[in-house]
Amino acid sequence: MMTTAFLGLGAMGSPMAAHMAARSRESGVSTLVWNRTFGKAEAHAAQHGSRATPLVETGQADLIVSCLPTSAEVDEVLGQLRGHLKAGSVWVDCTSGHPDAAPRQRERLQEQGVAFLDAPVSGGVTAAQSGTLTVMVGGPDAEIETVRPHLAFAGTLIRVGDTGAGFAVKAVNNALLAVNLWAAGEGLAILGLHGVNLSAALDVINASSGRSNTTQNLIPQRVLTREFPATFGLGLLAKDAGIALDMVESVRGSAPVIAQVTALYRAAARIVGPQEDHTAALKLVEQMNGTVLA
Amino acid sequence: MMTTAFLGLGAMGSPMAAHMAARSRESGVSTLVWNRTFGKAEAHAAQHGSRATPLVETGQADLIVSCLPTSAEVDEVLGQLRGHLKAGSVWVDCTSGHPDAAPRQRERLQEQGVAFLDAPVSGGVTAAQSGTLTVMVGGPDAEIETVRPHLAFAGTLIRVGDTGAGFAVKAVNNALLAVNLWAAGEGLAILGLHGVNLSAALDVINASSGRSNTTQNLIPQRVLTREFPATFGLGLLAKDAGIALDMVESVRGSAPVIAQVTALYRAAARIVGPQEDHTAALKLVEQMNGTVLA
Amino acid sequence: MMTTAFLGLGAMGSPMAAHMAARSRESGVSTLVWNRTFGKAEAHAAQHGSRATPLVETGQADLIVSCLPTSAEVDEVLGQLRGHLKAGSVWVDCTSGHPDAAPRQRERLQEQGVAFLDAPVSGGVTAAQSGTLTVMVGGPDAEIETVRPHLAFAGTLIRVGDTGAGFAVKAVNNALLAVNLWAAGEGLAILGLHGVNLSAALDVINASSGRSNTTQNLIPQRVLTREFPATFGLGLLAKDAGIALDMVESVRGSAPVIAQVTALYRAAARIVGPQEDHTAALKLVEQMNGTVLA
Amino acid sequence: MMTTAFLGLGAMGSPMAAHMAARSRESGVSTLVWNRTFGKAEAHAAQHGSRATPLVETGQADLIVSCLPTSAEVDEVLGQLRGHLKAGSVWVDCTSGHPDAAPRQRERLQEQGVAFLDAPVSGGVTAAQSGTLTVMVGGPDAEIETVRPHLAFAGTLIRVGDTGAGFAVKAVNNALLAVNLWAAGEGLAILGLHGVNLSAALDVINASSGRSNTTQNLIPQRVLTREFPATFGLGLLAKDAGIALDMVESVRGSAPVIAQVTALYRAAARIVGPQEDHTAALKLVEQMNGTVLA
Repeated sequence: MMTTAFLGLGAMGSPMAAHMAARSRESGVSTLVWNRTFGKAEAHAAQHGSRATPLVETGQADLIVSCLPTSAEVDEVLGQLRGHLKAGSVWVDCTSGHPDAAPRQRERLQEQGVAFLDAPVSGGVTAAQSGTLTVMVGGPDAEIETVRPHLAFAGTLIRVGDTGAGFAVKAVNNALLAVNLWAAGEGLAILGLHGVNLSAALDVINASSGRSNTTQNLIPQRVLTREFPATFGLGLLAKDAGIALDMVESVRGSAPVIAQVTALYRAAARIVGPQEDHTAALKLVEQMNGTVLA
Repeated sequence: MMTTAFLGLGAMGSPMAAHMAARSRESGVSTLVWNRTFGKAEAHAAQHGSRATPLVETGQADLIVSCLPTSAEVDEVLGQLRGHLKAGSVWVDCTSGHPDAAPRQRERLQEQGVAFLDAPVSGGVTAAQSGTLTVMVGGPDAEIETVRPHLAFAGTLIRVGDTGAGFAVKAVNNALLAVNLWAAGEGLAILGLHGVNLSAALDVINASSGRSNTTQNLIPQRVLTREFPATFGLGLLAKDAGIALDMVESVRGSAPVIAQVTALYRAAARIVGPQEDHTAALKLVEQMNGTVLA
Repeated sequence: MMTTAFLGLGAMGSPMAAHMAARSRESGVSTLVWNRTFGKAEAHAAQHGSRATPLVETGQADLIVSCLPTSAEVDEVLGQLRGHLKAGSVWVDCTSGHPDAAPRQRERLQEQGVAFLDAPVSGGVTAAQSGTLTVMVGGPDAEIETVRPHLAFAGTLIRVGDTGAGFAVKAVNNALLAVNLWAAGEGLAILGLHGVNLSAALDVINASSGRSNTTQNLIPQRVLTREFPATFGLGLLAKDAGIALDMVESVRGSAPVIAQVTALYRAAARIVGPQEDHTAALKLVEQMNGTVLA
Repeated sequence: MMTTAFLGLGAMGSPMAAHMAARSRESGVSTLVWNRTFGKAEAHAAQHGSRATPLVETGQADLIVSCLPTSAEVDEVLGQLRGHLKAGSVWVDCTSGHPDAAPRQRERLQEQGVAFLDAPVSGGVTAAQSGTLTVMVGGPDAEIETVRPHLAFAGTLIRVGDTGAGFAVKAVNNALLAVNLWAAGEGLAILGLHGVNLSAALDVINASSGRSNTTQNLIPQRVLTREFPATFGLGLLAKDAGIALDMVESVRGSAPVIAQVTALYRAAARIVGPQEDHTAALKLVEQMNGTVLA
């Protein structure tokens, strides 16, 4: 009988842990949950039948899943759990982490007999709630197959390469999100300044070659409505674009667009605010152009 | 009984004219077709039952549709047809034209009693063949409704604003296509240099927030296959991005990403070749990074 | 005995006109001066012995020098002087004008028998006061030689090409100023964030290959002192960079750095304020990086 | 009586070592010299009265100066000299190194009782030959004062901060060189395409606000002459710009211009060739614009 634990009950982690807890209960076991602000763990237990425990106790799980803001928080938790982990267990890190951190984290856990998989997720809060997240995993096939049945939040789980490849693909995906979103904001700002109706323009673009997830979903739902619901922070998207640029740097690549967009998102996070929704980057585009996307 | 004419039988224009001809025949009339290389008009007539005519004779049509490389060619044809047009007719320009050209062209035709609509199309050769193009139109509603039933190549026809708005939306759509394509090329180049499998990465991205038409269709079909089928030339996409940048300039806008990407596509058109498929812009990304997207 | 007139008594024009007036007086004639805010003309007359006149009276001068914010103001003044100009006279426009405007303005004046030279100046208020401006002139050699002795504000006067070339070189010079300034701001911001002393860094850079007018003069005098004296407005530098980008557009050139920097200066003019000194563009660099250049 | 050693006799190192040797001889001692291609050391000894020795013997010097392509080569040499260094000696690294490497190298040497100063130089081959290099040093004041009298190649020696600050300033200086050079190339390409004479344009710019070391020296001497003498490689300048971008990354800074220019130089190094002179980056600007700077 397998014990599972979930570390980090944020906007993504909380519904992910709920799916884990629901599946575990089918086998009659509890999912251990932990969160830095411990009240969130207790609330999760009350609502989803998981079990809130101190951090060190989660070390006794056979499968630990973490979903934290950055690799720095994962490193910290790894340090606190040193000496408390169970040999033979597997740690699946769903954080949007740094590819440089993964081999280091894997080595650190291997010394304790624990496997490590980098397994960030995509799909946002909606897919987390419906249990249909896309999980991109870096690591050995065999280890992935061991944990696959237990990742109840996954709609699709794809191995993308060796340790670190999961983090790498996630960073690049989010860098593309950042580019596509910013460019669409620029394009719409310019169309607006030329007197074009933005909703009609989006309808056309979404039936045309320039369409992307940002024109199809994010901009109509979050920007044109002026809602900017803060489900994924601007500071976190700037962080992810920065990971992609670090990857460019480490191979001495030439990626002028990703480089520029990373600079612009860092500027937006500082000027608009890191806690705003990531789509609020377009508020900086608006300021730069003296216009409003509406 | 309405006579229609179609000017410009390129990769897009030829199947568009075929749909026009098919619908006209239902009413027992021929669609006049003209092309600079006149043999293409004769071949079209033979294959699709249109009627190849000298340019000046097309001026007697009630509805003229043009689909030429740039607004410069439209201006030239307008000049040659001066004095040969029929008052009360409508000219629908499906060229990916310049918003600055539209009011000038409209005025020039109005002096001859002819209406003008800018009506570029999107969807590529495939949608042209299936008659499901998206048409984005700038101009008065009433004029648009007059021609709507006759544009047999249209799947969707959307009015996006006044004269010039059609060209404007098309230019911005194609600028977004250019940005999304280039950024995806950068991202994949970097992933490849980090040893990640590009097909798996695309599968993940296409189930995630970074997806766009370029990751879903163009890159898997044209780039990873190394086919780069030349259906839409790199020089033409550079031209369209340039129109978008002209629009930025005319309102003194701030669009650093569109500006940069325009510069990169002009460079790509010069270094890789303007006749190559637009997706071959990624061959410059490959050269810049010393890698191949495969 | 030659009559001269000077239109536009701003920060640059006022001392330039003073030099013209001083030299004219040697021949016993007055320099006519005009300014939109007419009190500035009267004050100039009182202080420098020029003669303040209504605009139309300046049309009787043999040599008219204009120094206005943009080519739009020159066009306006040209319109108001239509029918009031003296055949055989020469108009020297020292405005940082648009190369596209020059041939049009020359033609318009030629119809009235008046020659036109585009002749923007460089050196700033200091060189205007000392009468040592660099004047870059576009137009025929013979016409340039006619006016050369009378341009008392010129330290150096160089013919750079045909009509429009003066404006073109000025725009590119100012675009390079904009690039060099912004990049130096970025570099110093990063050094500061790494704990390096900025004055020492500037000393080194100014003895090294990365030096420019901006590191040698502008940044130590205006930025590190936090004075940002508004002698040349940020909005005007953004305008000049925009002229350079228009020149890129008109030849379909590929200038990714000038394109990007133009976008950034337009953003800075909107976010920091167009009336601030041009060096205050670095306040946006500071905001983008959460640091202060001090 | 102090023994000095010089490691790395490239285009810069060779004349620097010659100055060291000349000054040492005044005190009756030889300067030890070493180079990977040892024949260059022997030739140096023959020509300048230095003494060519195997690498390990240089470890007995009281002052070791290194001038190698990158920090990677310094790390390698440090490894080979491990156990052969003299406690109490000082190592001065004139390589254009990486700020991240400096603290590590200092620590590694401190374990052996050896001090470390990062001390890159600026001024190029000319200043190396005349012994008038600018030396920018990171490290403790006292250590700097110890070595100051012995660095015979220095015209100016400035402490810019703690360990690593020398490398940092050098990287930023070279990034500014890269930006200023590229932008000037863009500007001149555009002026040329507009029919402006480039020499006249440079004369004006060099008397104006857009001037920099690149317009005053590099472009007239190396580019317009088409000589591109390979004294400082394009690959090395791309490397230095990359170090500056790494510094941006490590503080999560926003430097869109340095980021973009780094990408362009890496592209230029790959497309034009890393061994070409750094000014040959403008050959890529030429290709991108279909023009020649002449």
